Amino acid sequence: MAVNLLPPNPSSLHPVAGVALGVAMAGVRKPNRKDLLVMRLAPGATVAAVFTQNRFCAAPVVLAKEHLVAQAHIAALVVNTGNANAGTGDDGIRRAVKVCDALADLIDCEPGQVLPFSTGVIMEPLPVDRIVAALPQALANGGDWLSAAEAIMTTDTVPKAVSMKIRLSTGTAVVTGIAKGSGMIRPDMATMLGFVATDATVSRKYLQKVAKAAADRSFNCVTVDGDTSTNDAFVLVATGQGPAAASSKDQARLEQALTEVSRQLAQAIVRDGEGATKFVTVRIERGRTADECRRIAYAIAHSPLVKTAFFASDPNLGRILAAIGYAGVKDLQTSKVDLYIDDVLVAKGGGRSQKYREEQGTAAMKKPEFTVRAVLNRGKAEATVWTCDLSFDYVKINAEYRT
Amino acid sequence: MAVNLLPPNPSSLHPVAGVALGVAMAGVRKPNRKDLLVMRLAPGATVAAVFTQNRFCAAPVVLAKEHLVAQAHIAALVVNTGNANAGTGDDGIRRAVKVCDALADLIDCEPGQVLPFSTGVIMEPLPVDRIVAALPQALANGGDWLSAAEAIMTTDTVPKAVSMKIRLSTGTAVVTGIAKGSGMIRPDMATMLGFVATDATVSRKYLQKVAKAAADRSFNCVTVDGDTSTNDAFVLVATGQGPAAASSKDQARLEQALTEVSRQLAQAIVRDGEGATKFVTVRIERGRTADECRRIAYAIAHSPLVKTAFFASDPNLGRILAAIGYAGVKDLQTSKVDLYIDDVLVAKGGGRSQKYREEQGTAAMKKPEFTVRAVLNRGKAEATVWTCDLSFDYVKINAEYRT
Repeated sequence: MAVNLLPPNPSSLHPVAGVALGVAMAGVRKPNRKDLLVMRLAPGATVAAVFTQNRFCAAPVVLAKEHLVAQAHIAALVVNTGNANAGTGDDGIRRAVKVCDALADLIDCEPGQVLPFSTGVIMEPLPVDRIVAALPQALANGGDWLSAAEAIMTTDTVPKAVSMKIRLSTGTAVVTGIAKGSGMIRPDMATMLGFVATDATVSRKYLQKVAKAAADRSFNCVTVDGDTSTNDAFVLVATGQGPAAASSKDQARLEQALTEVSRQLAQAIVRDGEGATKFVTVRIERGRTADECRRIAYAIAHSPLVKTAFFASDPNLGRILAAIGYAGVKDLQTSKVDLYIDDVLVAKGGGRSQKYREEQGTAAMKKPEFTVRAVLNRGKAEATVWTCDLSFDYVKINAEYRT
Repeated sequence: MAVNLLPPNPSSLHPVAGVALGVAMAGVRKPNRKDLLVMRLAPGATVAAVFTQNRFCAAPVVLAKEHLVAQAHIAALVVNTGNANAGTGDDGIRRAVKVCDALADLIDCEPGQVLPFSTGVIMEPLPVDRIVAALPQALANGGDWLSAAEAIMTTDTVPKAVSMKIRLSTGTAVVTGIAKGSGMIRPDMATMLGFVATDATVSRKYLQKVAKAAADRSFNCVTVDGDTSTNDAFVLVATGQGPAAASSKDQARLEQALTEVSRQLAQAIVRDGEGATKFVTVRIERGRTADECRRIAYAIAHSPLVKTAFFASDPNLGRILAAIGYAGVKDLQTSKVDLYIDDVLVAKGGGRSQKYREEQGTAAMKKPEFTVRAVLNRGKAEATVWTCDLSFDYVKINAEYRT
């Protein structure tokens, strides 16, 4: 049950010239579901990416990083769901290489020009034969952005795709992206999987800078359960078949669009968080540094006690103060902290506000979306994190994931 | 449903000479339940304590710290459950002072000789009138260690008390302690509330050193949900009415007993963790530093994905590797990591062990108690943390706590 998140309307998803999509049913984990995506890029496309900081990063992450460094041109991305190929050691690398080799053979490029991505169960061998067998089907089938979004889902209940057109001085550019993720979501540099493409013409240096900046303002601001995935990857593609973003104004406009699409995708992941019934914005204001604001925001957003109170629409808001208190900001003056739920002042100067009445808190928290706002009153920095509640269904989904 | 934890047998709890217990029903939050404990200490008793590191520490914690520093002799401890008197600002301090004043009047001591403790809901005003009104009853009633343990419970389902006698060269000493806690458990210096008393004669300096050391090897090694309480306090009392622990051998023996009682109480808290169905020991071996071992142990013990897998007895053990990977040990070589569930080798050199069969993992995890052991193979340090699983009932208890 996703929070205010509908499947995207296929007609709202603009194709990106220079990106050819293909999906197939490879039977990676379960039969009769789309689980393989091939994204072919026309010559001249530029690719940039950021990856998980998890030390147990998956075999495809290791390979994709290497290929991105070694190759000037990336010809294709291949993505499977159902198996993460993580915690699989050298054998996992060998299997990911086989997938790249097979696709390279089929589309006549170097294996190093293929970026592999996997998502799904960890520590199980990748069924490489079934994936390789389904590659020709994916290439023959074709597919649109909606079917691409569907082909990378795991426990997601809704496919996630966002698209927009923007006016640059040189013409109209398209930005279209997809993402997947629902659990094991606490991106650290990037989300589970996010792919955003534009037809604009840009330099690789620009695209890499934007990849990092957009991730920091989108996927790196969300958390479902605090578990940083082994497979996080966020990839930006610019095919160069549309208008050039050369002026600083056009570059800023394009960055804004890429960031906005990324942010909507990141928020969609939280709205579809495992078992989520609430979409909650946690905003920390007037801190001394952005880092301390983020620490506090994540302490709130990760606290199982706070998240179960969200689920119950129970304004047991002392739990939020407790989380602020243990966030690790050593010199925090609690007597200066104000706390709001939406516009309701709950705590003033570190203690319960005299005017606050619990009905106000309950009313705000009963809504499917609300904002927790803590004002530290010690500086000018701020940070925002998006999260969801912790419900019975989170436990149910994760206790039954593999069965 | 606590894991392998029965209510203590009253006859197994040895009285401690110099400690007089009294309990009452003050109606702090709910009627007709023991919710007030007074622990009077005979003259000559020595007291040492460690307290929460949460910046939003509760009003009674602030006062108890001040009193401990200012007073050579502590005459009484007063503990209420049902209300934490935390996140209550200056008004909370005034209310805690009133409780100390009232008890000091009744037992004819200075208010500064009373240490106050509270546990329960955060950010609600302490019903100080009801507590003060019940103090005479608590003093008149008397009580044993079991009723004392009962009088400090919140969401605990089992009262927690441990007792032992030890032989010192100077005679037999008694060590008896109680604790409470079930949720908001990730002690940082001490648990929710733990009180351990001995009749041995020791110096205050010795007792303070042991308080810190015992906490580090007991309460500071457990976690239920990662939420560090605003009210954590761990108090050691030595009444001086029994044998002296003066020789280094006797001091070591006494420290060992105080630590052992503390450890059993800390483990009892995890066994009675909110919704717990499994008691899990997480042991990290052959790390470079104890700190990195603790980081990894806590990353595993806090991961909602790992904890739901424990609940399901589902050896989805890649989740454990993922948690090891994001624990923040930057230079960890994952290719050296071995992972065991009890004696079953699951992962070898960072990947799934060839010999591992899933039935083995399931069989180990179906037991109500098991050990997750990760061997980092990069040094000689180690750390152990005790935790429980994350079940439907954790969500249920915390979504309904105040209703």
